[in-house]
Amino acid sequence: MSISRRQMLAAGLVAGAAAASPALAQGAKRAERWGVYELVFDGPSAGNPFDEVELSATFESGGKAIAVPGFYDGEGVYRIRFSPPETGRWTWRSASNASAMDGQTGSFDSIAPAKGNRGPVRVTKDGYHFAYADGTPFRQIGTTCYAWALQSDAKCAETIATLKGAPFNKMRMLVTPNVESVATNPFVRTGDGPRDWDPARFDPAYFRRYEDRIIRLGELGIEADVILYHPYDEKRGYNDMQRADDERYVRYCAARWGAYRHVWWSMGNEYDHIKTKTMADWDHLFEILVAADPHDRLRSIHQINTYYDHRKPWITHASIQNGAAVLDDIRAALHRDFALKPVIFDEVVYEGNSDKRWGRLTGEQMVERFWWGLVGGTYVGHSETYDPNRNADYSWLGQGGRLQGTSPPRLAFLKKIMEEGPVPGIDPIQHWWDYHIGGQEFAYYLKYFGANTPAEWPVVLPGRGEKALQSYRIDIIDTWNMTVTPVEGLFRMARRNEYDVHDPARPSIKLPAKPWIALRIVKA
Amino acid sequence: MSISRRQMLAAGLVAGAAAASPALAQGAKRAERWGVYELVFDGPSAGNPFDEVELSATFESGGKAIAVPGFYDGEGVYRIRFSPPETGRWTWRSASNASAMDGQTGSFDSIAPAKGNRGPVRVTKDGYHFAYADGTPFRQIGTTCYAWALQSDAKCAETIATLKGAPFNKMRMLVTPNVESVATNPFVRTGDGPRDWDPARFDPAYFRRYEDRIIRLGELGIEADVILYHPYDEKRGYNDMQRADDERYVRYCAARWGAYRHVWWSMGNEYDHIKTKTMADWDHLFEILVAADPHDRLRSIHQINTYYDHRKPWITHASIQNGAAVLDDIRAALHRDFALKPVIFDEVVYEGNSDKRWGRLTGEQMVERFWWGLVGGTYVGHSETYDPNRNADYSWLGQGGRLQGTSPPRLAFLKKIMEEGPVPGIDPIQHWWDYHIGGQEFAYYLKYFGANTPAEWPVVLPGRGEKALQSYRIDIIDTWNMTVTPVEGLFRMARRNEYDVHDPARPSIKLPAKPWIALRIVKA
Repeated sequence: MSISRRQMLAAGLVAGAAAASPALAQGAKRAERWGVYELVFDGPSAGNPFDEVELSATFESGGKAIAVPGFYDGEGVYRIRFSPPETGRWTWRSASNASAMDGQTGSFDSIAPAKGNRGPVRVTKDGYHFAYADGTPFRQIGTTCYAWALQSDAKCAETIATLKGAPFNKMRMLVTPNVESVATNPFVRTGDGPRDWDPARFDPAYFRRYEDRIIRLGELGIEADVILYHPYDEKRGYNDMQRADDERYVRYCAARWGAYRHVWWSMGNEYDHIKTKTMADWDHLFEILVAADPHDRLRSIHQINTYYDHRKPWITHASIQNGAAVLDDIRAALHRDFALKPVIFDEVVYEGNSDKRWGRLTGEQMVERFWWGLVGGTYVGHSETYDPNRNADYSWLGQGGRLQGTSPPRLAFLKKIMEEGPVPGIDPIQHWWDYHIGGQEFAYYLKYFGANTPAEWPVVLPGRGEKALQSYRIDIIDTWNMTVTPVEGLFRMARRNEYDVHDPARPSIKLPAKPWIALRIVKA
Repeated sequence: MSISRRQMLAAGLVAGAAAASPALAQGAKRAERWGVYELVFDGPSAGNPFDEVELSATFESGGKAIAVPGFYDGEGVYRIRFSPPETGRWTWRSASNASAMDGQTGSFDSIAPAKGNRGPVRVTKDGYHFAYADGTPFRQIGTTCYAWALQSDAKCAETIATLKGAPFNKMRMLVTPNVESVATNPFVRTGDGPRDWDPARFDPAYFRRYEDRIIRLGELGIEADVILYHPYDEKRGYNDMQRADDERYVRYCAARWGAYRHVWWSMGNEYDHIKTKTMADWDHLFEILVAADPHDRLRSIHQINTYYDHRKPWITHASIQNGAAVLDDIRAALHRDFALKPVIFDEVVYEGNSDKRWGRLTGEQMVERFWWGLVGGTYVGHSETYDPNRNADYSWLGQGGRLQGTSPPRLAFLKKIMEEGPVPGIDPIQHWWDYHIGGQEFAYYLKYFGANTPAEWPVVLPGRGEKALQSYRIDIIDTWNMTVTPVEGLFRMARRNEYDVHDPARPSIKLPAKPWIALRIVKA
């Protein structure tokens, strides 16, 4: 499978640019807003271009100037990728220490985005949710296939086909392999041993394969959460480089992929298990990344034991591994209080048949975590470990492929509930008073009962003042059997006490006494 | 009631120093390690000494030099208070812009501490607990009487008498009044209106009264958690000063009280409700405090809604207000994961008869919060709101006085359990796997059932490897009725699965099917 330029253009992800003559870049005439406008240069191939050649271009429009670093793509070809944040005429001027690429100029028109191009996902103004740049809420339902991008083209096609029918809109994916993979050499090899590679020389083919996978996700409307480091490959040592090599690597990834509007950066997976880096190293690499990524993509880092300080300014949202925090909406919500940013529980233990406790949730247990997380005002991520030999390395989690679990249809159902819900999202409601209710005050509430099987529920909502005296409709949602059953009539709220309201005429409702029930309470 | 120098000396808190001649300081010959060595100077009283006169002394011993700021105590008297961190001969030299106090020298011997003087409380090496400087664990059982220090001497004596018979070893207390008080003027008054006072001129009598209260707590072995700011006095505006006045105030408190070994600093109570200060203001005041307090006392800040970032370097422990977090040991433990420091839930809603939801816990509910917090590896604080007119301003919480609640004897019982427990304290055990067990691995465990009333419990402990195969004794603790009932015989642990151990011969124990039960599981 080769990268199809046609596909990329069709997806509005890249505005092609061809090198018409040596050292002369000619961009396309037009590029979609939030698409990729690419400049291609012919330049030097002698020495080590990755280290010795500097290239960037400054793009200007409407008084705004954005300096975008380029990268060497091998065989004397250099590229600069820019995603215009606004429509209009953009002019550019290149700068390079290679004179043939220095001082080139040009311009292009950034045109209105085509259908399906909603721009990059950003944090919403309230601080706890996500939306595309065009304002459409982004309701995160993530999954993880660590090394799917490094598998064969056939396996990759299978993963893509699976994703087409799945609810996931974010994919966590490692840049370097953690399990058996077809692509294992991001760097030029220098010998036969696993550590025989040159950290100063990237293998462009490896990165082109990876960005092909990024582009395919983009075509499906799935955000690519690119994980730069992980602790699962001590043999090869890609995650144990020296500082200068790490800087070069982070800058290269940022220059190659940062222009794709659906790229997110995860600095590390279980960063605290990478023993060759200190907290100061991670902070430093974030500073490098911020400086190297003029597109300012979302940034986080994922831990095993030691929570990173998500209040640090370069962190856009908290990426959390914690299997127990999403068994209680209040535990989940506390993470918002800690981070003061959106929270994604990117790893909450997996559905599957592993003999390890981190990979043997039932589908019901997987879905339960998403619902508690949602009521707590946070987002959750999925993956699964099913494998005939109970070896998660060969499962969806490790390599992608096919899904076997029972949770995905229920996560699609959940996503629909989320999409029907309030903008920008669900917030915990007075979670310090143990109501276990999420929503938006006086408009929309979700109550979730998890594995409990109550036969009735007192319809009590928190709230003071006149504005709490609304009328509501209630739907009983079976989150597992995927049904929504409206309760007849209205609940006309009156004051119950200083803190709460209820309808004295119908103070409680009957519930089906089954597990996995939720209530949706919407202002009439 | 006047301050008794004799009492202070008796408590080892102050080594007296008298000004023998004008501008000549003569310290005592000896001072206990961790006691207070005080220098007294006669100096200028013209102008505004609080603003215009600088005074400090550098104390040296064994190659260590500590610069200690002094303060003006009115009527031409200046003091410098120093708490020697080590025994041995200390020499000192004063520095002042008032020539009469500049360049004075002297020396004294720091002698071994008397009984009861265990030094200041510090954070333990593991990072999550507290111990006195002599190594004795400090098992925090705090209480709050916001304005007790500002009440009449009679009322103060009543509070002290109550504390003598109570389990509390830390007192949270405001410097400026929030409720009806006898002492209301920390600053020299300039008129009759509530805002008629001069922020540049302290009233030394106000501060002497307050430090008398500090000293009395010290005599009882109670840490004084001094709260510098709060949002409950918009009328007078002591908490809404300008930056230069705030700096002067923080420095004055630090110079006066920082030498008392049992002083802790709480920068603010519900800091985020003080609308005249920004986060940058708080950070700045912490920097001022760190620079002004060479004794490096414990420092934190207490919030209502927005958690302060307790990872900031000047914070020694997290001080948290949250009523729901201590209804679940895992919620509590998450605060350690966030702060990476000891956590004290200084406010968890109060026992009492208030009609407000923040002041009407039963004694059982108050004690429950302490136990969940303990199992989660954290510490909890008490207070109560009982008042005949249900006005918490006049309760223990507001003014001190007498305790009426039912929790204190149970907190004394809890404290005894803690003192019999491991050093440095209880840690959550694999809390990300929902065991709900605290302790120290393979040595000591606490299991708590709260309001649940189980009739039996499967004796399963987490742990891998040989070291998990210990034998344990179990005590059934009735935390409300204050009984400890040993279960006969041993539990000899064998492997149950990859993650857990149990005794196949006695896989569970019978429980009394009552609420407020805990288990203590101790290696035999």
